[in-house]
Amino acid sequence: MTPLDPALTRSAAPVFDLPLSAVLLRDDTRWPWLILVPRRPGLTALHDLAPEDAHALMREIRAASRALAAEPGVARVNVGALGNVVAQLHVHVVGRWPGDPAWPGPVWGVEGRIPYAGDARAALAARLHARINSDAE
Amino acid sequence: MTPLDPALTRSAAPVFDLPLSAVLLRDDTRWPWLILVPRRPGLTALHDLAPEDAHALMREIRAASRALAAEPGVARVNVGALGNVVAQLHVHVVGRWPGDPAWPGPVWGVEGRIPYAGDARAALAARLHARINSDAE
Repeated sequence: MTPLDPALTRSAAPVFDLPLSAVLLRDDTRWPWLILVPRRPGLTALHDLAPEDAHALMREIRAASRALAAEPGVARVNVGALGNVVAQLHVHVVGRWPGDPAWPGPVWGVEGRIPYAGDARAALAARLHARINSDAE
Repeated sequence: MTPLDPALTRSAAPVFDLPLSAVLLRDDTRWPWLILVPRRPGLTALHDLAPEDAHALMREIRAASRALAAEPGVARVNVGALGNVVAQLHVHVVGRWPGDPAWPGPVWGVEGRIPYAGDARAALAARLHARINSDAE
């Protein structure tokens, strides 16, 4: 069990696990936003991963990207591994569209957050999980 | 021969080829900044790549990341595939450090550019290329 950095779980909740990564959904209705955290201790960079884990991560990034691209209104998917603020290796996969609150700039570093109401976040997580589980690759 | 979007080559020059990707070096001394462009026509998202090309791209991203991490002063490597401005699939791999001109925010969307003088860019490209070519993975 690889612990999640508390800075990640302050604004995002773990919603399901993939073979390599714990998947978090950021609690911000402005963008459908997944965060993939490989369950391997002590990693801070993509190049720290073992080669087979790197390939598994790429597969999971692509499945998450396809799942987000299927959400209504999503026109692009931004993928980023930064780690300037939180060192633990994590990969953002974020649905974007022209006119979204940061378009065409990046979402990282944008202030504020608009939490989901009721069970909207759980419903989104369930849709994305189902799409990822049925991903053909 | 897959053409490069002119918006990519306005601020970055192709410096070498890897098995899958053309590699560009951004002409901005503020950060050592590579851009990997898979030589496949018509792709706009990571999930558009064939699975074997996705694995090759991950290998090239990791080699580029290791090469940048070996530059003096580089403490983190940021990796991003955004495509909000330029649709052609491309991946940024950027050396970062506390106190750099955008730290801890992202480099994407930051205004301005400070071009390299003399042969400094060619020398950096040669160092990075040599490291990538000798990458063990």
